[in-house]
Amino acid sequence: MDETLNLVLFSGTDDKLQAAAVLTAGAAALGKPVNVFLQYWALDAFTRAKIDNDHGLSPEAGTDGRKAVDALSKAGQASWAETLRQAKELGSVDIQACSLSMDLLGLEAEDLDPLVDGIEGVTAFYLNAGEGQVVFI
Amino acid sequence: MDETLNLVLFSGTDDKLQAAAVLTAGAAALGKPVNVFLQYWALDAFTRAKIDNDHGLSPEAGTDGRKAVDALSKAGQASWAETLRQAKELGSVDIQACSLSMDLLGLEAEDLDPLVDGIEGVTAFYLNAGEGQVVFI
Amino acid sequence: MDETLNLVLFSGTDDKLQAAAVLTAGAAALGKPVNVFLQYWALDAFTRAKIDNDHGLSPEAGTDGRKAVDALSKAGQASWAETLRQAKELGSVDIQACSLSMDLLGLEAEDLDPLVDGIEGVTAFYLNAGEGQVVFI
Repeated sequence: MDETLNLVLFSGTDDKLQAAAVLTAGAAALGKPVNVFLQYWALDAFTRAKIDNDHGLSPEAGTDGRKAVDALSKAGQASWAETLRQAKELGSVDIQACSLSMDLLGLEAEDLDPLVDGIEGVTAFYLNAGEGQVVFI
Repeated sequence: MDETLNLVLFSGTDDKLQAAAVLTAGAAALGKPVNVFLQYWALDAFTRAKIDNDHGLSPEAGTDGRKAVDALSKAGQASWAETLRQAKELGSVDIQACSLSMDLLGLEAEDLDPLVDGIEGVTAFYLNAGEGQVVFI
Repeated sequence: MDETLNLVLFSGTDDKLQAAAVLTAGAAALGKPVNVFLQYWALDAFTRAKIDNDHGLSPEAGTDGRKAVDALSKAGQASWAETLRQAKELGSVDIQACSLSMDLLGLEAEDLDPLVDGIEGVTAFYLNAGEGQVVFI
């Protein structure tokens, strides 16, 4: 099987994006190419206007989860955006915005953070994914 | 690796079902067979009684997300159910209800929308999936 | 492709954990080795202090979903923890806590339920996963 890891990011909360960033960085460190495809609320979180915002957590995090995340952040944990920037320096990580979700959110290319390498449709996503893993987060 | 794409749908909100429908339609357009396995709240959304209802969005969508989805819908975007019907005409898409989730929700075969092709257990799902990708949504 | 199934569990609600347990048990019954990697709120649910608690359901479950889950539980359905214990007797199921999430939640090895076989980083997860499926739940 192709070693490429293909992550479809749908959720835009900081906890899921952090989990995705860690999986991306780990794969990049092992030399696996990673394709990231941004849909819906994950795409929204990758806009210039919002990438540095607090994007909240999954509802199940609760008050204790919120405190744990805040404590780690104060202790210097890199944000998911920072982790992804590092992963891009470390290995082959390509981040594409889903064209349908761009339409949904009324976004233009210039609205996206420089972390995003381009915009593509779902067909291009599959063609780039080849025989590699597809993981939906 | 087998080209088959195997989607386990768990979530029943319109945004995740739309993302799943787009991934299904894209795969079908490329000639990949798609097996869809419906569990929990996704299965609930595929009942005759509810398929045309509003199933809400992920909590993170917020007010802006709700507005964006409504605007696209008014502009004529096909619903996820419609997108799946088109995908079935386009390619090989088989949709099965998880038998355990049927029990959970107290459903009978006749309660399901005609989009659903049958009911099967998790073992049958794995056997049909073969060597193909498994994606959980 | 390697037959191994690699589940990254992120969510800690009882409905998603039950879906994960059923996928694990089904794979184990077919002789597929299963690696489970616990992150965030799923890891929290596998602590000795909380494993027998009610972990709530996805927000979309609503009142009807809650009733359905409670009714099945009263009718004797095994909990997800029990289903996983059975899956471990049936086949090869290895459950590892993500070391980053251990730090996040301030957990020590002795805080984890005996269902958890160890603690590892994301690199070890990928190396154990090999060419097998990765599914994020």
